[in-house]
Amino acid sequence: MKMDAESDMVENVVREVEERGLKAHPIAGAQRTAIGITGNIGVVEPAQFENLPGVLEVLQVSHPYKLVSREFKPENTTFQIGKVKIGGPDLLIIAGPCSVESYEQTLRIANHVKDAGAHMLRGGAFKPRTSPYSFQGLGEEGLKILARVSQETGLPVVTEALDIDVVDAAAEHADMIQIGARNMQNYTLLKRAGQCGRPVLLKRGLSATVTELLLAAEYVMDQGNGQIVLCERGIRTFADHARNTLDVAAIPAVKRISHLPIIADPSHAAGKRHKVAPLSRSAVAAGADGLMVEVHDRPEEALSDGAQALRPAGFVELMEAVRQLAPAVGRSIPTYASSS
Amino acid sequence: MKMDAESDMVENVVREVEERGLKAHPIAGAQRTAIGITGNIGVVEPAQFENLPGVLEVLQVSHPYKLVSREFKPENTTFQIGKVKIGGPDLLIIAGPCSVESYEQTLRIANHVKDAGAHMLRGGAFKPRTSPYSFQGLGEEGLKILARVSQETGLPVVTEALDIDVVDAAAEHADMIQIGARNMQNYTLLKRAGQCGRPVLLKRGLSATVTELLLAAEYVMDQGNGQIVLCERGIRTFADHARNTLDVAAIPAVKRISHLPIIADPSHAAGKRHKVAPLSRSAVAAGADGLMVEVHDRPEEALSDGAQALRPAGFVELMEAVRQLAPAVGRSIPTYASSS
Amino acid sequence: MKMDAESDMVENVVREVEERGLKAHPIAGAQRTAIGITGNIGVVEPAQFENLPGVLEVLQVSHPYKLVSREFKPENTTFQIGKVKIGGPDLLIIAGPCSVESYEQTLRIANHVKDAGAHMLRGGAFKPRTSPYSFQGLGEEGLKILARVSQETGLPVVTEALDIDVVDAAAEHADMIQIGARNMQNYTLLKRAGQCGRPVLLKRGLSATVTELLLAAEYVMDQGNGQIVLCERGIRTFADHARNTLDVAAIPAVKRISHLPIIADPSHAAGKRHKVAPLSRSAVAAGADGLMVEVHDRPEEALSDGAQALRPAGFVELMEAVRQLAPAVGRSIPTYASSS
Amino acid sequence: MKMDAESDMVENVVREVEERGLKAHPIAGAQRTAIGITGNIGVVEPAQFENLPGVLEVLQVSHPYKLVSREFKPENTTFQIGKVKIGGPDLLIIAGPCSVESYEQTLRIANHVKDAGAHMLRGGAFKPRTSPYSFQGLGEEGLKILARVSQETGLPVVTEALDIDVVDAAAEHADMIQIGARNMQNYTLLKRAGQCGRPVLLKRGLSATVTELLLAAEYVMDQGNGQIVLCERGIRTFADHARNTLDVAAIPAVKRISHLPIIADPSHAAGKRHKVAPLSRSAVAAGADGLMVEVHDRPEEALSDGAQALRPAGFVELMEAVRQLAPAVGRSIPTYASSS
Repeated sequence: MKMDAESDMVENVVREVEERGLKAHPIAGAQRTAIGITGNIGVVEPAQFENLPGVLEVLQVSHPYKLVSREFKPENTTFQIGKVKIGGPDLLIIAGPCSVESYEQTLRIANHVKDAGAHMLRGGAFKPRTSPYSFQGLGEEGLKILARVSQETGLPVVTEALDIDVVDAAAEHADMIQIGARNMQNYTLLKRAGQCGRPVLLKRGLSATVTELLLAAEYVMDQGNGQIVLCERGIRTFADHARNTLDVAAIPAVKRISHLPIIADPSHAAGKRHKVAPLSRSAVAAGADGLMVEVHDRPEEALSDGAQALRPAGFVELMEAVRQLAPAVGRSIPTYASSS
Repeated sequence: MKMDAESDMVENVVREVEERGLKAHPIAGAQRTAIGITGNIGVVEPAQFENLPGVLEVLQVSHPYKLVSREFKPENTTFQIGKVKIGGPDLLIIAGPCSVESYEQTLRIANHVKDAGAHMLRGGAFKPRTSPYSFQGLGEEGLKILARVSQETGLPVVTEALDIDVVDAAAEHADMIQIGARNMQNYTLLKRAGQCGRPVLLKRGLSATVTELLLAAEYVMDQGNGQIVLCERGIRTFADHARNTLDVAAIPAVKRISHLPIIADPSHAAGKRHKVAPLSRSAVAAGADGLMVEVHDRPEEALSDGAQALRPAGFVELMEAVRQLAPAVGRSIPTYASSS
Repeated sequence: MKMDAESDMVENVVREVEERGLKAHPIAGAQRTAIGITGNIGVVEPAQFENLPGVLEVLQVSHPYKLVSREFKPENTTFQIGKVKIGGPDLLIIAGPCSVESYEQTLRIANHVKDAGAHMLRGGAFKPRTSPYSFQGLGEEGLKILARVSQETGLPVVTEALDIDVVDAAAEHADMIQIGARNMQNYTLLKRAGQCGRPVLLKRGLSATVTELLLAAEYVMDQGNGQIVLCERGIRTFADHARNTLDVAAIPAVKRISHLPIIADPSHAAGKRHKVAPLSRSAVAAGADGLMVEVHDRPEEALSDGAQALRPAGFVELMEAVRQLAPAVGRSIPTYASSS
Repeated sequence: MKMDAESDMVENVVREVEERGLKAHPIAGAQRTAIGITGNIGVVEPAQFENLPGVLEVLQVSHPYKLVSREFKPENTTFQIGKVKIGGPDLLIIAGPCSVESYEQTLRIANHVKDAGAHMLRGGAFKPRTSPYSFQGLGEEGLKILARVSQETGLPVVTEALDIDVVDAAAEHADMIQIGARNMQNYTLLKRAGQCGRPVLLKRGLSATVTELLLAAEYVMDQGNGQIVLCERGIRTFADHARNTLDVAAIPAVKRISHLPIIADPSHAAGKRHKVAPLSRSAVAAGADGLMVEVHDRPEEALSDGAQALRPAGFVELMEAVRQLAPAVGRSIPTYASSS
């Protein structure tokens, strides 16, 4: 309440709170009175009280997420993706091209990343592009290429479902469905992804808070799908030395609040190849459960995001760096090679 | 090029440029060599050159938008929305509740805003909410309420199409389709909106640059729909005194580059009722072609965003303030009452 | 408190609060317990409680500023600057070059802006420049030029005091001392400015919140100097279409909390000449008490910030636009010409 | 140039460029003409050309820093701070309280951090505080305490020089002078620090770009002092889960451009104790040359920033974690204990 709020204003707020079935707790201080509100199951709209006479401001104390929180489920969520059990000590390494450009390109790159030790193949069949004149992806043809390469290499695949029309097709051909950063608050898509029967890789939006990321996951989980991997991929700030600002502190922040695993995408944050390795190390050291890295064997010909794609040799170096780092932070990198 | 780039590196970049059917123009400076690239129709991926040996950075000089630019069409786009010809001296005032909650609520508020001089009714039937536990809108029932209230009051209506599944229904019941801030880069939705046969109100994303906003409009226009109204609604920054930071400079920035009209949504930027009037005046003074304002006659009971909704009396005051301001910036506010 | 905090943890926090001479008010809710804290005169460091067992977070409810707040002094602060009484209906228009480059340049521009109706001359003698190799100002020589031009034209002057060593010299030669954006949290300088016996123009830092701006003013006022004019000059965001993002909503935000006048600097926010007029109109419409505008008669030769300087003809147009706008928002522009 | 710029406009720009002693290189493209500018020794003000008729925009290609760049000095700058040679494989660990509160407190904490393996003691004698009512530091008394504790423990000390008046006193008592984030663009202070005869620890401003940080270092180096340690301490963004956003990518960005060492301050970025360890690991993994960490043995009684201070036991754990990590990224942590 404001300093000059009179007692009838306080009483009025108490009445308004109670009329909504909630409980009001006025606390008289030396300078002003505060009113605690309890009893709400879901979220209280600050709107309802903020403009009553004498009210200075409405502060949210309780948090709006439920299912994704550690208060709801204290222990880490773990589940199997191929040979990797995400959410535990295992690091999940996903690698591949930004876009599926052809069967040959995808197979070549898949073999490169598999040989280097990646556990999962990434590749976009539907590409969200800022300009309508940029390459938009091969569409369903791209999904079929992914499925074929997956079968031939034994690598499970993750691919973005760009809209609700393609969720089912993506779920049919891929082992995990990606919701991209631009779609993090596309709620219809989140709900559909929650029903698709596949694990969901949910990327943080460019200007999403951690709370909003967790609430987006809540949409998926509320549909009965708890197999969610969050992904920090950089936020938009004034800093102009990288494409986006990798917010490594979001990783321990998420882990403190939520039981869900979280990986990092250093490629989109970096925007440039030469920053991918330091950002990868940085994310793993901060506690990330894995990495998703763009790799292309001919990046200068890539139809999208070539500048940030590692070459196969660069990816081999990156894997070596992560292998050295992992035990120092209590993590291990399952090896795949033996099983294929 | 870097300062220590050797001549064969320069020649190599020239060759790479020319292999892509483009033209390279090396310029030798005292300290370093720069290479201009011309001949590109669409967009050049910086990726293609950024990692060649000796290259320091790739700068984009040309702009990626075409149809929405004044270079393509120098004169303002104007079109009729109800009695208002947007894009010329007329200011378009859109007002109404955040959400359609019931027929009675919508009709009451519609009459209030019509009496005060608004030209168009807003109201959400499908609501994008950060939390899955918040009110999500009445859905198709809401669309029917809007259509009925529109017919009874004579006010045209605008409503958000939340996803591709509801574009057609929204286009059937409303006079203009809104693409919300969270969907500004939902490209499938933009394309569908471009085909729906209705004008499109395109809101700027929370972290979208002006270039990205214009490219989103390019997606719509590329489908043959040039009846687009852009909307500045505040961006996400560190500033914590308002919900978002209304970026009034985006208004003249858009007008300089593009022929499309642009309005402002002061309600979402403000987040609090008491800032709606100053932000409205501010946007009109900066050259906005109109305003979209949230009004509710019982904001403390509103199911969404009540704190930022003006009461009818507040809206009457706002209209009076805008009426005084308009001639001072060469604008007029068509009156509706007499004609209906 | 956390949901699983036990009653002894609550008791422990209560004890810790009371040991600091404060009063604790536990409020038991359905899901968790909150503890209100009162009795603090100054600011409570959240640090003191945030890491106690069971504590979820510490929220600040009370505000840390005192002297600058409307709770302390409800009515607007007004004072005379030349013929203008700032803080009331009068708009204060300050104009002049970015840098004082010579006596002739300063006099020429001073006459231009005086003829157009400006009330005060601006001009930098000490320039804060990002690069050590940029022009750094004429120093004390510049102060003397300003004083001489002030005497000859009758225009009071404002100039930046770049550091504590030059506050007294600036106060001797100028009518108002400017604290620049980069120095908004240079506390030694703020204190010295509060002792200099001149009104202080305090610019908001590029990444300062409104609270931090007001606390910077509190430093000045705490030294006994209440003649402070705040200045919104744009904040740093991701938006790249202007040099900075003019945060017009900060104007009503400041006016609601504080009794101090606030003006806007559209030139630094715009960064480009063609945006100065719309931003000026926008700031006045939002409730600014005045404008500070950069004007140069030969901007292509200016030693700093030429791109954002209006030419004299552009400034005449701007004054005309502001004259039309002012009465529409209840403001007037005192005329000077007659009195000189 | 704009698409519709005519040939005489191009010629005019060329003339304007050449009149300034620079060289113009027009490049005719299919759609528009670009003009390259070379021959500038220092920085070209875009201002000078941006408003000429037909000009679309002026892009900076060359970079404004000289002395701090790798183009000027390719190999890493290294120098000795106590037993640590910064800039090479050694990691420099600085630890201590936010503020010097008393001789006893400082000595106790110094012994704790020395036992745990820190190489240098930090502690503020002059504290920049957002509010004038917060504890402002012990001043010169604090400097003497630091010097005494340094002598007794053998740990070199670093302390902030808050303004030009105290640079000499700080340089007399401390082994390295810190320029705080709020003062990164206090150019008078930077110049004075460049003359003080001590190494300078330069913290990045909350909204400073990497270019601005390097130009601030250029101010110091231009005075003949090349012993500079840069410090990434988090930037201000919309993200609200931490006090500031640690921009780890700035570390490799600085290292690519500059030969100067850079360390990280995880404490200020985190704002909360529990994020200090993950951010420390993250920064070292990204390539930081060291860490500066706040440690307090009674954080709940700390006069400033207690919430982010590690307890001694927490610092021991942190050192252990960094010791495990260091070899995995090719770094070592010199041990001090043997020498004391």
